[in-house]
Amino acid sequence: MPEGRVVLVGAGPGDPDLITRRGLAWLRRAEVCVYDQLVAPELLDEAPPEALRIFAGKAARRHCASQSTINAILVHHAAAGRLVIRLKGGDPFVFGRGGEEVVACRRAGIPVEVVPGVSSALAAPAAAGIPLTHRGLAASFVVATGHEEAGKDPDARGGRVDWPALGKAGDTVVILMGMGALASIAERLVAGGRDPETPVAVIHRGATAHQHVVTGTLRDIAGRAAALGAPAVIVVGEVARFAEDATALASDTARAVSSAPHAGPARPDRGALS
Amino acid sequence: MPEGRVVLVGAGPGDPDLITRRGLAWLRRAEVCVYDQLVAPELLDEAPPEALRIFAGKAARRHCASQSTINAILVHHAAAGRLVIRLKGGDPFVFGRGGEEVVACRRAGIPVEVVPGVSSALAAPAAAGIPLTHRGLAASFVVATGHEEAGKDPDARGGRVDWPALGKAGDTVVILMGMGALASIAERLVAGGRDPETPVAVIHRGATAHQHVVTGTLRDIAGRAAALGAPAVIVVGEVARFAEDATALASDTARAVSSAPHAGPARPDRGALS
Repeated sequence: MPEGRVVLVGAGPGDPDLITRRGLAWLRRAEVCVYDQLVAPELLDEAPPEALRIFAGKAARRHCASQSTINAILVHHAAAGRLVIRLKGGDPFVFGRGGEEVVACRRAGIPVEVVPGVSSALAAPAAAGIPLTHRGLAASFVVATGHEEAGKDPDARGGRVDWPALGKAGDTVVILMGMGALASIAERLVAGGRDPETPVAVIHRGATAHQHVVTGTLRDIAGRAAALGAPAVIVVGEVARFAEDATALASDTARAVSSAPHAGPARPDRGALS
Repeated sequence: MPEGRVVLVGAGPGDPDLITRRGLAWLRRAEVCVYDQLVAPELLDEAPPEALRIFAGKAARRHCASQSTINAILVHHAAAGRLVIRLKGGDPFVFGRGGEEVVACRRAGIPVEVVPGVSSALAAPAAAGIPLTHRGLAASFVVATGHEEAGKDPDARGGRVDWPALGKAGDTVVILMGMGALASIAERLVAGGRDPETPVAVIHRGATAHQHVVTGTLRDIAGRAAALGAPAVIVVGEVARFAEDATALASDTARAVSSAPHAGPARPDRGALS
C-alpha cells in the first residue's frame, strides 16, 4: 500500500490565482481534498475529477465540523494510504488552526507537510493599495483576530487579545474576523491610547473581483462600515490613508482579476498586455 | 506604442515554488525584470530569455541602488511602453518599500499593480513547524524589523520600533532583519515585561533546502545563534516551542523541496508520491 500523507496547503486570500505553484502542484494530485469555506471554488476544480472532496468549512456563526472531527478525517484517509490535501483559506498557520492539524497527524504517525499561502491579512490590504509597513509611517504591524472578542467561538480558550496594549504597540493593526466586534475593538484601541482620528480601512472580500473598501477613523468606522459583513480585513494606522487611492488601484486589480494571466491550465497569452 | 506598466510581484520567501500562480504568469511575459537580492535565481529563468534583467538588490550593509534610483528605473522603462516586473523577495508590501514604488509610478502616470506574495515572516516559521497563532497559546502576532535597530539604514526616518511595548502586546513576535541586533532586541523585550525564559527560534534561510533552526530563550538566544547570519527570521513566544519538532518536519520539507511537485515548466509527475 502506498504511504499516505497530509499536506496542509494555503489556498491564498480568495483569488484562485494567488495560490502558490507548490500548493497547486500538490492539489492537482490530491486523492482526498478537505477544504474550507473561504477557498475559491475554481481551486476545487484543480483537484483530479476522481478525488474525494470533503467540506470542512466553518461559517462565522456555525461550525460545520468540529476541529477534532477534521483532524480525525485527515488521519483516517492518510492512514488508509491516501494523499490528503488540506486546503485552507489564506495561510494554514495564521488563525487557521493548522498547528492543531499538524500535531494530530504527527501523533498518529502520519507524514505531514505545510505549504504556506498568501495570508488575507497581507493580501487584502495590498489589493486595496495599503502597504502594512511604509518608511516613516509604519515599522511594524500586528495581526489579531476579532473572533474571540465577539464571543462567537465556543472552542476559544486562553490567548485573548489585549487590544489596548496592541493599539499602543504595533504601528499598523490588522484585524481578521473582526466585523462582529468592530465598535468594541475600535473603542478599546482608543482606550489604549490610539488617537480617535487614526485612519481605518475596512476591506470587504479583498483581493477578489467583488472587493469593496470603506474608510474612516477609529471614531466613526463602526458606523461607516455597518453595512459590510464578513469576510473583511480591517486595517488601523497611518498606512490606511493609502486606501484613499484605492479606486484607481482597485480597478487595475479588478481588470487583472478578470483578464490577466493564468499560469494554470492554459498558458498565458503573451501578447495580451502588449 | 503599447502601454507600459509596472507589476510588483512578491517572489515569496526564497523557495522558487512559493511564488503565486499570478506572479509567475506576469513574470513569464516580462520585458524588463527588476529583481532583489533575496529572489531565487531559478525564478529569473522564468522570465523570457530576451527580457532585460536589472539587479536592484540591497545587501544588509551596502545599498546597491538607492530607492529613488530603483523608482526611476521602473518609471523609465514603463514610460517607454515596456512591461516591467518588479520582483521582490517575500511580499512587496511587508518591509519591501513597495508602497514607495507604487507612489512613484502613480505620480508618473504609470499603471501599477501589486501581486501579493508569501512573506518570509510567515513562511520561514511555517517551514520550521511554527504556527504564528495557536489556540490557547497565541491569538495575535507582531511583525517588526530589526534593521533600523542596528542603525544600518541611512534612509530610516520615523516609525522606530517600540520593542518593550511590542513585547507586552502581541503573543508572538516575528522579527525580520534582526540578526545584527538580536541581543539588544531580546534585552528590550525582557525590559518590556517578557519572561526571559520565553522560547525563541531563529530560522536561518527558512523555507529553503538550506534551512537551519536554532532554539533558545530570550535570555540565551543571542549566544546560541551567534554563528548565524542573515537572512534569518526570529520568532519569540510560546509557539516557538513547536520548533523542537522541527527536525522531522524540516526533513519532510527538504525532501519536498528536492523531489516534490513543480507546477512550473514541467507538469508534476502524478505518480511520484503514490
